[in-house]
Order: sequence, then structure tokens, then C-alpha cells
Amino acid sequence: MNRVYNFSPGPATLPEQVMLQVQEEFLNYAGLGASIIEISHRSKEFERVAETAGNLFRELVSLPSDYTVLFVHGGGRMQFSAVPMNLIGRVPSKKALYVETDVFSTNAIQDAAPYGTIDVIATSKGSTFDRVPEVPLAKVDQDAAYLHITTNNTVYGTRWNRFPDTGRVPLVGDATSEILSRVMDYARFGVVYAGMQKNLGPSGTAIVVVRKDLLGAAMPHTPPLLNYALVDKNVSLLNTPSTFNIYVARLVLQWIKDNGGVAEIERRNNHKANLLYDCLDRSEFYRGIAQRDHRSIMNVTFKLPSEELTEQFVMKAEKEGLYALKGYRSVGGIRASLYNAMPVEGVQALVPFMKEFERLLG
Amino acid sequence: MNRVYNFSPGPATLPEQVMLQVQEEFLNYAGLGASIIEISHRSKEFERVAETAGNLFRELVSLPSDYTVLFVHGGGRMQFSAVPMNLIGRVPSKKALYVETDVFSTNAIQDAAPYGTIDVIATSKGSTFDRVPEVPLAKVDQDAAYLHITTNNTVYGTRWNRFPDTGRVPLVGDATSEILSRVMDYARFGVVYAGMQKNLGPSGTAIVVVRKDLLGAAMPHTPPLLNYALVDKNVSLLNTPSTFNIYVARLVLQWIKDNGGVAEIERRNNHKANLLYDCLDRSEFYRGIAQRDHRSIMNVTFKLPSEELTEQFVMKAEKEGLYALKGYRSVGGIRASLYNAMPVEGVQALVPFMKEFERLLG
Repeated sequence: MNRVYNFSPGPATLPEQVMLQVQEEFLNYAGLGASIIEISHRSKEFERVAETAGNLFRELVSLPSDYTVLFVHGGGRMQFSAVPMNLIGRVPSKKALYVETDVFSTNAIQDAAPYGTIDVIATSKGSTFDRVPEVPLAKVDQDAAYLHITTNNTVYGTRWNRFPDTGRVPLVGDATSEILSRVMDYARFGVVYAGMQKNLGPSGTAIVVVRKDLLGAAMPHTPPLLNYALVDKNVSLLNTPSTFNIYVARLVLQWIKDNGGVAEIERRNNHKANLLYDCLDRSEFYRGIAQRDHRSIMNVTFKLPSEELTEQFVMKAEKEGLYALKGYRSVGGIRASLYNAMPVEGVQALVPFMKEFERLLG
Repeated sequence: MNRVYNFSPGPATLPEQVMLQVQEEFLNYAGLGASIIEISHRSKEFERVAETAGNLFRELVSLPSDYTVLFVHGGGRMQFSAVPMNLIGRVPSKKALYVETDVFSTNAIQDAAPYGTIDVIATSKGSTFDRVPEVPLAKVDQDAAYLHITTNNTVYGTRWNRFPDTGRVPLVGDATSEILSRVMDYARFGVVYAGMQKNLGPSGTAIVVVRKDLLGAAMPHTPPLLNYALVDKNVSLLNTPSTFNIYVARLVLQWIKDNGGVAEIERRNNHKANLLYDCLDRSEFYRGIAQRDHRSIMNVTFKLPSEELTEQFVMKAEKEGLYALKGYRSVGGIRASLYNAMPVEGVQALVPFMKEFERLLG
């Protein structure tokens, strides 16, 4: 088997150990003589998978007991609709606050528009999303239903290092591109959600963490599968969930635990990102896109002097087994995604490749 | 490897040949050095998978060119919301017609309620869903947005053998539990949808076939991922789709083609179902639940004289490698689901088991 170092922004590389286990038991799960994808979501075997996944997640993020953990259909984007449908009706003004930091926060703002008054209280569009903006408490209308941020911005490679103080307004975080990659205080949030396809498993499903007092205010037009209170009441089994995705996530969560938990994973992620940022900072050839204080440890973005060089870089890298380094289509340049499952060896292969490329063509 | 005959109603047995291929290439798809679940949905490799899946489906059901094929998040139940959100606004009355034939049609009726006037024009509830009701054209209000039926009823084991004439009102069919199991004239329908987890692949995704003139009337509160016109415009890549599910479906569709297409699969399905129904009809011990003219060839349901015997039957069967025969929780009895991937050998093992069980305990 010849596996590459896969820097794909998502769907993304998963731990090889997990992949091997999925492969090994794919036709015969737990001695049942059938695959995990061929058995009922109400079988005791699958119910145990889902329950263990939820419990492992709670344990790994030290989730306070007044939060519920849901597995829902549709990835992060379905939550761009579900968040306003569930929360905006909590306040008479039907007003929600958003911070614009990237392509995906922009989509979240657009998708929320039909459900109320959407107020973009801060944006970093003016500096082409190279940072996250300041959000002073004074800007946070205390009568709003919630304030939405994207905790890590996967396109430009920025993240929130300090989350804004929102007063009594629930903070909602889209953590799709960084969930479980750093220690995070969930008590600061009303809702945290994440599509699975970067740090948790295959695409098509999201994990949604909701503070329980926020349940129950969904607008009447909310589809039942998007209604947090209903999904919670039915323990994420309102209909047949994506059983394969939850099963893979359960294995990935166990892998994080076996590797020392989120704090240790964060230490490794910092190390990987620092190796790469050091290389950028020492070079005149490569130019980092994100401002230093706002850099993501998940998505490292940079530019080369020309589009021709960028294309050559991507092609040459691929030949060296360094896969999917091309930047986001509207941004260009290079994006190296260093999710939890990227081994340090991947970065240790990328850095010398970059130096050699610069030496030859810089 | 010790595979059972898996009669699970869904998620359900898949062709062993498909399962082996998924397993074999699970860590290295198409020589990329990465799994199909680890690569971008915008990679040329995945785009080809999705395109081939759509084209194979079109070919297998002889789909007229004025229909589009969508892959969407959430299984069949998400469509219980999506159908009214997309179609009910087509008529000023915001009225839709439903036929109640089973647990799932009842759910569809409930989930549609917030979006307009839902008129249940026929039901077989009076005879405990042992048949599908007559729906004369005179009952079909020609000003309604659509008429919704469940083409195969997986809980009680009935199906529509002749679809109702609806005049100019678009017919909407939930074909979750029988898609691609029999030759069906799609031109009779405005929309056909099916959760994947019975005849197509893993759970969490649905295939939705829409006549193109019905696109574009979604109500303003429709989440983009549920909006047929938007999903169609973005070729099912509005966000990251469930790449694994579409990949498995693509292999299952190829398997159907390689096995002679839907007509040949239907012939085999009829043969499998007849073996089992013959056994029921010759017995005084087993009692079929569905009326003879309304019998499903996908889900064969029957009762034993007592709950104790039913429990014994399920337990003994499991020991013989005949898995997941327990009936739906609200119905009881036995349900043998004979989806496309169930080999005839499974039924040829079940029938003698039933005869022996009757001989010993009948």
C-alpha cells in the first residue's frame, strides 16, 4: 500500500489506524456476519456505537452536563439554516448577529437571511480576510438571539484565538475545520457545530452541541430533522442517521483518546503548524496569507510569486506524494491542511520539499 | 468470513461483490494513495463517481430527459419536509394531497402539515394497512400542488401495483423501500425520491428525481440544501455531499447493470418473494399480513400464532444465520426484507427453516 501525505482541506485524511480497522471489519462487524452499514440503526450494536461516540466526545471536550450532543444530517452547511431556524425565534426582534471572516461565514450569513434580521457586526473583508476582526462587547446587541462566528476559517487560514465576550447573548461557533484540534471552553458557547469531514470522519454529517436551555424555540417551518429539540428527544435517531459516518467518528474519537486527548493533539498540531510557519517566515519566496496573530493551526495558506510557480509547486508536490496542496479556488496559492490525522512526518516531508523548490526556482 | 443472510429492513444487505470492492480499495482509491472518503468532493475522481452514479441511474430506469437526478442529505425523511417546501407553493391554495398507507406515509403527512393544507384523500388505516386504498381520479383535486404516495410500504409489506391516475396533478412517490426493484414508469411521476439505505447503499442520503418544470417554486424558508432548484443548479455539490454514500451507490448501480438491469432484477425479486409467499399460502401456522393483491416483493410480513413463538422463531433463525427477521416494533410478527442484494439462496434457506419450525412447534 502506497499512502500519500494528504493535505486535502476536506474531506480529509483520517488516521491510518482507523482506516485499517474499518477495512478489516467492513464485511463482518462485531462478529455479526454483516457490515456496520448493513445493520439497523436500532440494533443494539449500532446504538452502542452512537452512544459511545457521544460519550467519548463529551469526555474529550469536558462538556458540561447542561449541553446535549447531536448527530445530524447534512454537514456544516445544513446548520447555516438550522441555527437561525432553531434560535432566532427566541427573541421578539428575530435578530441575529454574525461576524464575517471567510467564504463560509459569508454563506452562513446568506443562508440565515430568510429567517430574520441578520446584522453583520464585524468583518475582515476589508483586509481580504487575513485576520479575524475585533468584536467589543459594546457591539453585541444584548437583545439579539445569538452571535455567530466561524472559529477557524479554512479558506484563508485564520482562527479566533480569543473568543469574543458576548454578554448574555449565546455565542454560536462553526468549528467545522478545527473541532477537537485544540482545547476549547464549550461553556463559552450556546451552540458549537462541525461538519465531520475534516477532523471526525466522512462527509455528510455534523455534530451539534447545544446548551439545553436553548432547545425548544424552533420556528414552525423547521423540518423535524433540523429541529434540535426533536433530534435531542429522539437521541439522534429521529430517522435513520448516517450510520457509517457515526461509526467512523466513534473510531476517530477513540483514536484521539488513545493518543492522549485533545490537549496532546493540540500540542502536536501546534508543532506541525510551527514547522511550516517557521519555513514561511524564513523565506522571501513564500508569503503567508494570514496575519501572524490570527494564524490557523489547521489550514496553513501561502502564496508563491506567480500562478505559474504555484501550478508547478502543486504538480511537483503531487509527484513527491504530497497531495492536494492547491489553495481554495477564489484565493489561489497553496493551502496545506494539517488536521489531527496528518502525521508530523507529512510536514517533515513538505518543508524540505518547499526549501528545495525555492532553491531551484526562487 | 462468515456472512449471514441479512433480512434487515434497512440499513440492509448490500451486494457482496460491492462490499468486497469497497473493502479492497478503502485505503487507496484509484491509485491515489488516499481513500474515497479522504478526497475532495471537487476532485476529478469524485466528480466522475457522482456523474457516473447519476448517469447509471438514468440509464437503469430509462429516465426521460426532462427529469433531473439529485443526491441530497438526510434519507427519505428529509424529503417529507423538502417535498412540501419545494412544491406546495406552486398553487395558490397551498394544498397537497396524501394517501395514508403505512407508518412512513403517516410521518410524511405529519411533517408536511406546517407548510400548507394537507388533505388525506385515502387511507387503508381502517384495515390496519393490509392494502393500499383505491384512489379514483374524481378524488384528486385538480388544483392541488401534488399527490403523495408511498410506492412500497415497508412496515406492513404492501405496495402499489397500479399507480393512481392523478390527471394534471404531479404524482410524488416515496420509493425508499423499493427503488430499482421493479420496472417503473417515471414519466407517471413529478417527483420520485428514495433514501439510499435499502436498495442503494449506506444510510443518510437520498436520491431525488424531479421533473424539471417543477423546479423553482420553493418557499422562502426552504434551507438551500433542501431546495431542489439550487441543488440541481449546483449538480448536487452545493456543499460537501456524502461522498462515501454516493460512491457505494455508484457501485451498486453498476452491479444492477452487470446483473441484467432492473427488468432482470425484478424477475429475481418476484422469484424470491414467490418462494416465500408460496410457503405462507400453504401454511395454516403462518399468516401473511398483506392482502394478496397488494403484496410487496421487498418486505414479506407474516404473523405466528403467538408472541412467544415469534420470539423463538427470531432467535432460532438467528442461530441458523438468518438475521434480522423481527417485524416492525408497532406491528410485531416477522418481516423478511428481500431487497435486490438478497440472494435467492437466502430465501432458499429461510423457507426450509420455516417448514421445520412449523413441523416442530406448529
